Amino acid sequence: MKAIVLKPPAGLENVTLEERDMPQPRRQELLIRVKATALNYRDLEIACGTYHTAFRLPLVPLSDGVGEVVAVGEDVTRFKIGDRVCSTFWQRWTGGSFRMAEPSYQRGGPLDGLLSEYAILDEQAAVFAPRNLSDIEAATLPCAAVTAWQALVTEGHIRAGDTVLVQGTGGVSLFALQFARASGARVIVTSSSDEKLERAKALGAADGINYRRVPEWSTVVLDMTEGRGVDHIIEVGGPLSFEQSLKAASRRGQINIIGYLGGSQGAINPLDIFRKQVDVRGIPVGSRESFEAMNRAIETLDLKPVVDRVFPWTEIKDAMRYFADGSRFGKVALELQDNRP
Amino acid sequence: MKAIVLKPPAGLENVTLEERDMPQPRRQELLIRVKATALNYRDLEIACGTYHTAFRLPLVPLSDGVGEVVAVGEDVTRFKIGDRVCSTFWQRWTGGSFRMAEPSYQRGGPLDGLLSEYAILDEQAAVFAPRNLSDIEAATLPCAAVTAWQALVTEGHIRAGDTVLVQGTGGVSLFALQFARASGARVIVTSSSDEKLERAKALGAADGINYRRVPEWSTVVLDMTEGRGVDHIIEVGGPLSFEQSLKAASRRGQINIIGYLGGSQGAINPLDIFRKQVDVRGIPVGSRESFEAMNRAIETLDLKPVVDRVFPWTEIKDAMRYFADGSRFGKVALELQDNRP
Amino acid sequence: MKAIVLKPPAGLENVTLEERDMPQPRRQELLIRVKATALNYRDLEIACGTYHTAFRLPLVPLSDGVGEVVAVGEDVTRFKIGDRVCSTFWQRWTGGSFRMAEPSYQRGGPLDGLLSEYAILDEQAAVFAPRNLSDIEAATLPCAAVTAWQALVTEGHIRAGDTVLVQGTGGVSLFALQFARASGARVIVTSSSDEKLERAKALGAADGINYRRVPEWSTVVLDMTEGRGVDHIIEVGGPLSFEQSLKAASRRGQINIIGYLGGSQGAINPLDIFRKQVDVRGIPVGSRESFEAMNRAIETLDLKPVVDRVFPWTEIKDAMRYFADGSRFGKVALELQDNRP
Amino acid sequence: MKAIVLKPPAGLENVTLEERDMPQPRRQELLIRVKATALNYRDLEIACGTYHTAFRLPLVPLSDGVGEVVAVGEDVTRFKIGDRVCSTFWQRWTGGSFRMAEPSYQRGGPLDGLLSEYAILDEQAAVFAPRNLSDIEAATLPCAAVTAWQALVTEGHIRAGDTVLVQGTGGVSLFALQFARASGARVIVTSSSDEKLERAKALGAADGINYRRVPEWSTVVLDMTEGRGVDHIIEVGGPLSFEQSLKAASRRGQINIIGYLGGSQGAINPLDIFRKQVDVRGIPVGSRESFEAMNRAIETLDLKPVVDRVFPWTEIKDAMRYFADGSRFGKVALELQDNRP
Repeated sequence: MKAIVLKPPAGLENVTLEERDMPQPRRQELLIRVKATALNYRDLEIACGTYHTAFRLPLVPLSDGVGEVVAVGEDVTRFKIGDRVCSTFWQRWTGGSFRMAEPSYQRGGPLDGLLSEYAILDEQAAVFAPRNLSDIEAATLPCAAVTAWQALVTEGHIRAGDTVLVQGTGGVSLFALQFARASGARVIVTSSSDEKLERAKALGAADGINYRRVPEWSTVVLDMTEGRGVDHIIEVGGPLSFEQSLKAASRRGQINIIGYLGGSQGAINPLDIFRKQVDVRGIPVGSRESFEAMNRAIETLDLKPVVDRVFPWTEIKDAMRYFADGSRFGKVALELQDNRP
Repeated sequence: MKAIVLKPPAGLENVTLEERDMPQPRRQELLIRVKATALNYRDLEIACGTYHTAFRLPLVPLSDGVGEVVAVGEDVTRFKIGDRVCSTFWQRWTGGSFRMAEPSYQRGGPLDGLLSEYAILDEQAAVFAPRNLSDIEAATLPCAAVTAWQALVTEGHIRAGDTVLVQGTGGVSLFALQFARASGARVIVTSSSDEKLERAKALGAADGINYRRVPEWSTVVLDMTEGRGVDHIIEVGGPLSFEQSLKAASRRGQINIIGYLGGSQGAINPLDIFRKQVDVRGIPVGSRESFEAMNRAIETLDLKPVVDRVFPWTEIKDAMRYFADGSRFGKVALELQDNRP
Repeated sequence: MKAIVLKPPAGLENVTLEERDMPQPRRQELLIRVKATALNYRDLEIACGTYHTAFRLPLVPLSDGVGEVVAVGEDVTRFKIGDRVCSTFWQRWTGGSFRMAEPSYQRGGPLDGLLSEYAILDEQAAVFAPRNLSDIEAATLPCAAVTAWQALVTEGHIRAGDTVLVQGTGGVSLFALQFARASGARVIVTSSSDEKLERAKALGAADGINYRRVPEWSTVVLDMTEGRGVDHIIEVGGPLSFEQSLKAASRRGQINIIGYLGGSQGAINPLDIFRKQVDVRGIPVGSRESFEAMNRAIETLDLKPVVDRVFPWTEIKDAMRYFADGSRFGKVALELQDNRP
Repeated sequence: MKAIVLKPPAGLENVTLEERDMPQPRRQELLIRVKATALNYRDLEIACGTYHTAFRLPLVPLSDGVGEVVAVGEDVTRFKIGDRVCSTFWQRWTGGSFRMAEPSYQRGGPLDGLLSEYAILDEQAAVFAPRNLSDIEAATLPCAAVTAWQALVTEGHIRAGDTVLVQGTGGVSLFALQFARASGARVIVTSSSDEKLERAKALGAADGINYRRVPEWSTVVLDMTEGRGVDHIIEVGGPLSFEQSLKAASRRGQINIIGYLGGSQGAINPLDIFRKQVDVRGIPVGSRESFEAMNRAIETLDLKPVVDRVFPWTEIKDAMRYFADGSRFGKVALELQDNRP
């Protein structure tokens, strides 16, 4: 079978297609024929060698993907041949607190990712793909969508009538927008592009703020909320936007730190967390239980992931370059178009 | 001012209109000109003398209502003259667990209710009426809507993708339907009337079951949920429907016991709660914090209470008789039509 | 190797010792040399054929046990040879809500139990035995102790200053007493024996009630709590004691239904749950995450399970008869005395 | 009656004793004869004019205190003459989330504090003093003890077996030590004094670290916890200690920001919160419901606040100077010794 492999040393130029032996499912494992995968910022950093952890190479990239079960190992009971499944980001975090996750079992590094014609999944690390989604759509869920769900629903206990601020229009932010709306919340979006703000409103955002025009956007957020501030913040901007987030949060507002698209440099005085009386936490994607609960919502409400662009899977380098330039709105996916039955 | 008063001994025939002195707001109290009130089953029982607790009479009936602040006592800071406010059911339960509620501070018994031209509210026991609601609509919230919110949201932590079963189409059940839909849940409704089931679907219910035709309706619920059962049940039928509810619940499903419209006789083996591994709890309306959170959802999503019929407030006996006959769909309200400024 | 086996049809007379092939650990499995096991009421019912579910026989009995890892299969990372581990009751419930448990993966039925010289455990279904416990003590944890922890801590969120009522002095009840005391709660115990009440007080119970002398023991509980009632009830008596539990509970008290030692017949009106405003739930043992959290408490506070009596493992029938007669105080364990290295 | 008053401009030199009219309890108010009060860092800052908010002067200082009810206003139902009560820090936060607190109702600024012979309390803003405590001891509870309880219990859901790190040996930290021990947790204390570390161990701390000798104390904490880190941190040191706290926390560890005794300058990169996957929050003292739950624990377990030194109430300036010098171990209280009946 064919696989995309990142060879040492890390760098986009060392991402190559190679032939590998067909893997065989062992006890409690599934063999899937991969149908589609999707990109996350972490995948880009790993490929470029800028991720904060260096994994052993060679490595098959991309944590996210969907495929069809084509063979099952001994003792598999959760799935059967023909089922369509998504991989989970944490291969060993079925439920409970993040302490139950085993650190060395992340897809796409240190474990091989999904960018290959076939892949092996532990049956405990797979979920049924939502029936209402195409392969491309289902492939976008494991990292970005579960992160948004974990932040707002599993840990955030979002309620109808809450107010949510999402930064930008990348994968996590648009999923957060959709899950917030599905949960009855009001959503405010920030972006550097008026056109993207309009598209976010078409998805259900109540308000948009162009942070390029209004760098002190927290003042606008406070106006929009009659001084109350927002209850949940999807903080993907990094230390510089965090300062604004602190000002925009409500008393006991929740700031979910997820990314640093605006750069990782900067600092805050932690006493501002005390003075503003907010909750700040990191979000480590989520457990399989979160994923399955999210999928029930996706099916019940027929939610559709926003896919910006689809590349043939062998054009992974182009896809990564496109992903890196920041102009996208939603997810970038890869299709294994020769992998249709 | 005029007031409706229940005189001893309890009984509909002793509900009369009488003249009372205009009350004066004391420290931390509001005087409101009542605009509208609404009926709950508890009010009917108190008036008929069938409620499980006997209150000292005479008593002004009806816990629910909305009015305009026309005078404020000393030290009032939460409201000002001209504000439109709803009463809270528990006059001394602002937030936290039900243990914080003081039992002898319930509106409509033992405290006087709202069925009078003017009424006094403690400022801690009032909330702003949602701006998107008419007086009639706002009057229906304090008991039934807060009960539904408390069951599903405050205690139930409902999430998008959950499944909710509501019994019948009375006030609590229709509010539960609306809040469940607003929270992204799927709703199944039971009723003895196909016509009401259709109306419930028009409000967003996914499915309806006529329990008259299908007394063992739990089997249909299990079919509708692929055997999984429902996550939240609004149990207003009493012991007989409870048996079906137990069968229809999912593992760790939540059964909220709220009423007994189908009669209060019957029994279950409590071990069935163990065998089915469900959570069962009573719902005691809710705190002011629940009420305020609910109102944010009502405003954010422009939810409208379902009002079945409006009576002039002096026709309270007719309203109660109509309410008792069970043919309604939603709330029965009373308008103080001469009380417009 | 030797194993105790329950042969069809179920009945104590069909519990026999037989020779079996030595099992081999497969991928992600551990082979343990069993050091000790312990009895639970469920085991007794399964052996006698009175359990509500009939499992396929032959079956190795007993869900609980401790052993030393003597071989590991492929891909085992959580344990190594020489580690001392307890089995978990649910072989596939590592964390999260009970919905994550897979029903057909319970130890001692339908899966083979631990009453054999060697046994196979999935590495995800094993936990390190607390270092401060003997083999006999550690063997008593998987079912009874985790049930008590799940009821009071994981689901009950017990806090210092709460009041707990435990019924009787069986395994779950004494663990609950110890965990409640460790958590700073006050404990009231009921028993039919004054001598057992004294022993419970020696373990930290504040008060004891002889329910034989005071069948309406809820009135005593209300006196002892200045009318407030108890916050948590370990309900192991069945429908008849449930009635007293309802009366003894505080507002928003939690009644954990776990057993039916006083018989399974009887009935309550579910509206009493509404009128008393309590939470009632079944407790399905608990997840591995609960087990591991409990073990940290056991080690931190050097808690010691109460072992009533230890039998040689081949005397399982005597052990079961002794267990059945109800005179014990705490756990009944079985030692594989020939199994010491 | 006599009262200590802070006159404008703020500064210790403007703290003076003056004669005031005896206050009269209005509706729902209590008049108490103050028996004892206690100092918090906030009181010191307000008196010195260094608090981040400037209140209108003159002001009676000190949020904490205990007294005997000597008169009750109209409609008081929670207390009667002769009851011994503590004030609550937030006069209008009976229960629920911090959003229910009304900002301008804090004792000791902007509302008058307790350092006077008599004081007025709203009956909703008073709790029974624990019966097992002296007046001096009970006076220390409202701010420091409730803060520790809120951090560990109400928001932290502390469980037996958890590990807690408390910084220093001031009021909040020693209460946290005691509540953590009462809840079955293991406690690690940091201090600059070996002698104080010994005293903390005598109170139940398992381990102590002299941060003067080991500025990188997080490494020692990780050693003490087998690399796991601590589950709860009482962070009172400020930005500089926060850096160590982040390193010492477990995955999903909770960092409660409460003070800045080591200075308020310094900065962190908020992404470290993401990388370490911790929860960080400010703690705003707590609600009356928290206070009452804490008092039940104090009575149940006969916990005794650690009082370092008691001053006559008129020697408030000496008390504040002593408090400021940092050598104390526990609370500094003031006795209204001429105020005994």
